[in-house]
Amino acid sequence: MKKLIVFLLFMTSIANAQIEKVEPPFWYAGMQHSAVQILFYGKDINQYQVSASNNIAISDIKKTENPNYLFVTIDTKQVAATDFVFTFKQKGKKTLQQPYSLKNRKAQSAERKGFDSSDVMYLLMPDRFANGNKNNDSTSDTKEKYNRDLPGGRHGGDIEGIIKNLDYIAAIGATTVWSTPLCEDNDAKFSYHTYGQSDVYKIDPRYGTNQDYARLAAELHKRKMKLVMDYVTNHWGIEHWMIKDLPTKDWINQFEKYTQTNHKRTVIHDINASEIDKKVAIDGWFVPSMPDLNLKNPLTLNYLIQNAIWWIEFADLDGFRVDTYNYSDPAGIATWTKAITNEYPNFNIVGEVWMQSQAQMAFWQKDSKVAAIQNYNSNLPSVMDFTLYEATTKAFNEEDAGWDKGMMRFYDNFANDFLYPNPNNILVFAENHDTNRINETYKNDLGKYKMAMSILATVRGIPQIYYGSEIGMAGNKDKGDAAIRQDFPGGWEGDTNNAFTNSGRTAEQKQYFDFTSKLFNWRKSKSAIHTGNMTHYIPENNVYVYFRYNADDTVMVIMNNSNDKKTVATDRFKENIKNFTSGREVISEQIFDITKEVTLEPKSVLILELN
Amino acid sequence: MKKLIVFLLFMTSIANAQIEKVEPPFWYAGMQHSAVQILFYGKDINQYQVSASNNIAISDIKKTENPNYLFVTIDTKQVAATDFVFTFKQKGKKTLQQPYSLKNRKAQSAERKGFDSSDVMYLLMPDRFANGNKNNDSTSDTKEKYNRDLPGGRHGGDIEGIIKNLDYIAAIGATTVWSTPLCEDNDAKFSYHTYGQSDVYKIDPRYGTNQDYARLAAELHKRKMKLVMDYVTNHWGIEHWMIKDLPTKDWINQFEKYTQTNHKRTVIHDINASEIDKKVAIDGWFVPSMPDLNLKNPLTLNYLIQNAIWWIEFADLDGFRVDTYNYSDPAGIATWTKAITNEYPNFNIVGEVWMQSQAQMAFWQKDSKVAAIQNYNSNLPSVMDFTLYEATTKAFNEEDAGWDKGMMRFYDNFANDFLYPNPNNILVFAENHDTNRINETYKNDLGKYKMAMSILATVRGIPQIYYGSEIGMAGNKDKGDAAIRQDFPGGWEGDTNNAFTNSGRTAEQKQYFDFTSKLFNWRKSKSAIHTGNMTHYIPENNVYVYFRYNADDTVMVIMNNSNDKKTVATDRFKENIKNFTSGREVISEQIFDITKEVTLEPKSVLILELN
Repeated sequence: MKKLIVFLLFMTSIANAQIEKVEPPFWYAGMQHSAVQILFYGKDINQYQVSASNNIAISDIKKTENPNYLFVTIDTKQVAATDFVFTFKQKGKKTLQQPYSLKNRKAQSAERKGFDSSDVMYLLMPDRFANGNKNNDSTSDTKEKYNRDLPGGRHGGDIEGIIKNLDYIAAIGATTVWSTPLCEDNDAKFSYHTYGQSDVYKIDPRYGTNQDYARLAAELHKRKMKLVMDYVTNHWGIEHWMIKDLPTKDWINQFEKYTQTNHKRTVIHDINASEIDKKVAIDGWFVPSMPDLNLKNPLTLNYLIQNAIWWIEFADLDGFRVDTYNYSDPAGIATWTKAITNEYPNFNIVGEVWMQSQAQMAFWQKDSKVAAIQNYNSNLPSVMDFTLYEATTKAFNEEDAGWDKGMMRFYDNFANDFLYPNPNNILVFAENHDTNRINETYKNDLGKYKMAMSILATVRGIPQIYYGSEIGMAGNKDKGDAAIRQDFPGGWEGDTNNAFTNSGRTAEQKQYFDFTSKLFNWRKSKSAIHTGNMTHYIPENNVYVYFRYNADDTVMVIMNNSNDKKTVATDRFKENIKNFTSGREVISEQIFDITKEVTLEPKSVLILELN
Repeated sequence: MKKLIVFLLFMTSIANAQIEKVEPPFWYAGMQHSAVQILFYGKDINQYQVSASNNIAISDIKKTENPNYLFVTIDTKQVAATDFVFTFKQKGKKTLQQPYSLKNRKAQSAERKGFDSSDVMYLLMPDRFANGNKNNDSTSDTKEKYNRDLPGGRHGGDIEGIIKNLDYIAAIGATTVWSTPLCEDNDAKFSYHTYGQSDVYKIDPRYGTNQDYARLAAELHKRKMKLVMDYVTNHWGIEHWMIKDLPTKDWINQFEKYTQTNHKRTVIHDINASEIDKKVAIDGWFVPSMPDLNLKNPLTLNYLIQNAIWWIEFADLDGFRVDTYNYSDPAGIATWTKAITNEYPNFNIVGEVWMQSQAQMAFWQKDSKVAAIQNYNSNLPSVMDFTLYEATTKAFNEEDAGWDKGMMRFYDNFANDFLYPNPNNILVFAENHDTNRINETYKNDLGKYKMAMSILATVRGIPQIYYGSEIGMAGNKDKGDAAIRQDFPGGWEGDTNNAFTNSGRTAEQKQYFDFTSKLFNWRKSKSAIHTGNMTHYIPENNVYVYFRYNADDTVMVIMNNSNDKKTVATDRFKENIKNFTSGREVISEQIFDITKEVTLEPKSVLILELN
């Protein structure tokens, strides 16, 4: 009886012998990354002899301990776009054929310009923004079904919902959309956040199709806006098809028993760190449902490089935001980043590098002299200003600045800008999908919101705003992630409050929206803000004054974070004020005489264009 | 009537024409700094022709706007020690003669080895340590008189008092004495702190004589101990003789009206700083009674360089501690420092660089790569670990470490050591004469004191302890400086408590002293602590474990900062424990089996020498 079963299984395997996965599914002609390592997945595929038609040269074949994988490298240098066929032969087995394409690239694809400091980034979570297509709320091939009653469930938001509301996003003054991940996440629970991806070549069907994603980019480009993909190099979801049949044991980082990361990425530069702490920091898992990818494995690393490049080329992307950037092997992630910027020298990539000090964050920016101390270069063009974020969440509740509070926090932050190789390519933000919402922190105090947004809109770097805050949405992280990742009002059929339209907004939502929209639309044309110099003055009495300027323009920002009306003598600022005599406030459009002094209401800000 | 007065004044000036000051008062043969710029001060001295006997070449003469100063540079290169005479002639005036000496240096003076990480520094305030000579408590030529009833008054402590108690200091395990300044401070009030010096070539007569100071060094050297002078480059006292008749207006930094420093030394590296803030930070005064020296003035700078070198040579010093190091012109202070280390390549200088982050402090250490970002090099061999100080004053009151509290503060501090060019040449301390006393912070909790001292005694760097804490002295900075600068019990005749002697100590003082003495005496011979490597482990449950080791020795430190007894499995530390099986605790001398686990009492530390 036992023998019979074995025989039957064998027969089945022959009958079903086929190629189940080909990744990347196609490639492009004329790429820097011209040696494409194609993964073929199928039962015992590594026992086959592979050849390619059309004189395509196979330069390398890698087999692993798992017979179901074959990594075939073809040399596409000097090869024009073409369709060709891979043939897999083995004695006694049916010959397999796999069509493959080298496609033409878009014109000037390599020169594409990524997001930069002239942009404003709008961060949204696709499941929670707008449900544009009710037909894909649940699908037969994904486990977790639509359940809007569940705070951590799938709520039905999708790419169509984003596309339908692009004009709304543009109206805020945002020019770039960063959506949290959209590739398939087939977890049974909490798949809405989509950081545990199960197929990184496929948009989750509940969000739409790969074509829908490319259409999102095209619709943005039509509006002169940009699309940033949220890329996850550190981990996949436990449901990823490769995790269920690993190509090599070390495709992911494994321990004798489940080992969680200790989150101390300082081990990477710490000359006193123990080896075990280094290993656990880098190789430990984020959560049990997210296997930790091993970027020391060249096959894994190259897989991720190709996947990233493929998405840029396929969807016509303008940037990456990279999740948990420094939880990966430092050499591996630097190689990954370098491969992408080699392919696209003007592309931008911002890494989530959540550290405690400017030196630690600056370590992670490309060509960092801080990292050079340890002979390291991440190649990462942009990092996130987490110390500014910290300041933004505390300062406006501090009436007395003292030595290091209130507006002094901002001054102290920018005083360390010299540590960054490129302080203008830093993402500045007051909140994101992992933090308390800024309107929660400040209990929907509109004045404090205005000050926080004014900081983001006028300092160096790339402002990032988080969906919903522009209409006053609050949300308490202490109540769980769902509390900060709410459905945008108006995104669902039957929503009584539709904040996407002017007429649908409540009076309070209007106040938030009108301010935000006016501020960031003003910023769009201000080169002095985008790329100008900054001069700031040590805050006095919790009043902070700084200037952004270039040859064409000077913008003076005065922020009164005290609870008292303040009159600020302008004599101290003469090195920036020069011969200017008045300033036009960008929100109120009021003209201020700046020759002697300027008076500010308590907890208020003036952004003055000097004349 | 008016004419007569003028005439009389003129007559007086002729009658009194004389050289009142010569600085440096003598110099040494065979110095690197061989072009000695000698300041002559006397009525209208710059109208005289100066010449030197013994073929001493005058290479430069500088006159300033003040006729009472003449700066005469002699070239002493290749000149043997000699006594010679300067002659000052002017037609119609009496010829003046000024003897001068080039003295022989001590053997190997240039090679003198400064304090280093094998040392333990004992910081004391001379007015408050011990009154060894009652005859100099007040002197006729100094304004402020002895008044021990006044907390901020002169209490009579002196050099003789230090010398008499050197065996006590040695008994603690300290090897180096840092006394706060001893040069004359002729302020009418608060002169006891002596940071407002009125003559930097003369020991304050209430402390003793220049010879007494040299004798202090000699007495220390007899005990194989070292002497560190507290040098003040940033300011003098308002009573300094030169301040009363400035050589040049810009000898000191002057403003239209009194301008206090803004204390923001970050302006020095801040690419966004305003010019006015930079000027006020560097040129602003510390307090109205301390004129701010202008190190951009080459005459001033050279005066300070020569004064510093003169003291090293004269008093046979082993190091400087430099007050308010980065309140001076950055180029000037770097030149000052370089001149000293050029003269004495193995000398050590620790600067008070009180900054908020490791990057900011590392900026100030010699050959800093952080400072190189801004093309700066302070040349300063050693800085003070102010972030460790901050940690030390908070950690032991935090029962729950969480992400960044309790023992995590120490881990996070040492995780940034890579920023320092030389992490082993950093002063580590829990308190000094400007801070709360550690026993005040911890309310005389002996367990917490032991943990704090154990950190200082076992981490990288040079431990500094503050007089009196070793016998449990507390003192609250909030009550004013006098509250942390108390008289040492036993330093004054009639003191009922004499903590200098074992029999004179109270039971509580004994507990503090015996622990401190045992700890730091043990440290004396431990090269693994002085210069060994460090490996530390991420604290778990507020327990911090680290190792100091070299080829000869391994020391394991386990600190339980929780309120619970903890049993720590040692398996995690195998990369350091290797084949060691037991550890001898240096205080209790108890032997611990380390093969499986070690158990610690709440709030306790074990320092284990592994076998």
